[in-house]
Amino acid sequence: MPSHADGGALYIVGTGPGSPGQMTHDAVQAIESAEYVIGNSSYLTALASFLVGKEVIRSSMGKEVERAQQAVDLARDHVVAMVSGGDPGVYGMASIVLEVLERSGSDIDVRIIPGVTAANAAASRVGSPLSGDFCVISLSDLLTPLPVIEQRLRAAFSMGIPVVLYNPKSRGRPHNLSLALGIAREHHASSTPVAIIKNAYREGEEVILTTLGEAPGKEDLVDMHTTVIIGGSESRLWRMGDHVKGIITPRGYHRKYVY
Amino acid sequence: MPSHADGGALYIVGTGPGSPGQMTHDAVQAIESAEYVIGNSSYLTALASFLVGKEVIRSSMGKEVERAQQAVDLARDHVVAMVSGGDPGVYGMASIVLEVLERSGSDIDVRIIPGVTAANAAASRVGSPLSGDFCVISLSDLLTPLPVIEQRLRAAFSMGIPVVLYNPKSRGRPHNLSLALGIAREHHASSTPVAIIKNAYREGEEVILTTLGEAPGKEDLVDMHTTVIIGGSESRLWRMGDHVKGIITPRGYHRKYVY
Repeated sequence: MPSHADGGALYIVGTGPGSPGQMTHDAVQAIESAEYVIGNSSYLTALASFLVGKEVIRSSMGKEVERAQQAVDLARDHVVAMVSGGDPGVYGMASIVLEVLERSGSDIDVRIIPGVTAANAAASRVGSPLSGDFCVISLSDLLTPLPVIEQRLRAAFSMGIPVVLYNPKSRGRPHNLSLALGIAREHHASSTPVAIIKNAYREGEEVILTTLGEAPGKEDLVDMHTTVIIGGSESRLWRMGDHVKGIITPRGYHRKYVY
Repeated sequence: MPSHADGGALYIVGTGPGSPGQMTHDAVQAIESAEYVIGNSSYLTALASFLVGKEVIRSSMGKEVERAQQAVDLARDHVVAMVSGGDPGVYGMASIVLEVLERSGSDIDVRIIPGVTAANAAASRVGSPLSGDFCVISLSDLLTPLPVIEQRLRAAFSMGIPVVLYNPKSRGRPHNLSLALGIAREHHASSTPVAIIKNAYREGEEVILTTLGEAPGKEDLVDMHTTVIIGGSESRLWRMGDHVKGIITPRGYHRKYVY
């Protein structure tokens, strides 16, 4: 941690998928060193054990710009930890805080502390579905127009690599997941594996393994705390005896070695 | 951690970018609980403080299949931690271990412990270059044929999103980075920011911020311990006064809010 004896500091801290065991040592340290901890209510609840004796500012979804402004203001004279689920640089608070900081003109000591992002957390619960190249796309059309999302999905599936869908569904966009699955089927066999991972490393964790052919109709199982992984052209189900345990995307050792 | 009083267990552990501070609590715990720790020599060196009193098996690059086989064999009767830099599910050991395990037919208790992958670690050193959708592509043609890599690069840059290049250069493939930069220039303005991040969170850390127009000629600064981030169509340099501090890819709040 940088020293901050001479004034404020702003840590933008990735808290990983949600269980304290999945936080990095540096993330815990940054929160422990802070006077103020700011974040979305749901992330702060999971961090309760680290927050004793601190000023805690709970914000809510949709208030990201105000939250960033408040963090930048406080960090002039205080040590502030802005917490962000997963990795703060992936659909997290890093970009908006830096934009607000840039406009403010103040040269605050800012540091981004990475975390395990949902793509990697969710993948670890279903074997090795990513393994190599992959693409991460959010289905939220709050900040990105839907036609842009569609164009990205088409290009991503054309690459033949696994695609991780963030924000696959919420009240405002019930049909975006069906749209994505439809585009995937234009490029991939119906046997292509699909994993639906709900609440990875949190209470209520649930994993559904299916295929592109059988996924339609399962969209209702998906909510805003879900990550969906659609396999690539080489992905397959991972079986042990009669059990489907997850997804394996081979890295290509079979092209080089006999094993 | 699952209990393993009744026999062996196999943890495939992501150790993050390289400094112990960037490891998760669960990753540290898994290594501490293991009798055998297996991994690439360079990762094990960084973990020296956790390895006292353990059987340590140092392997080398190119020996991944043998290493996986050894881990599976030992895990029948012992608690084994297979360490993998970054996240084990991204160009790491998870897929090959699961493939070997599947073929062995033995039903070992296996668990994958995610870590901070190089994309997120490197990004955190240069502001918020990813922020939202992004694509991860390895330039190594050891396991993926070069024409396939080229096709993926074309599709990825057509999406207008940031692209993270893993394994941008090594002895066997000195020209793949120039090729990737050339394809990027077909899709993006020459002012598009590029970050070259060497040894993120390790000794010898170095960051070079440049643009697509000025990157050619800088390929020699890149080695196999480097991650390269090429911004998307909305990415820009992040400036504080006269200093270029990094890259910001706005998430799109400016389309919704005035701030």
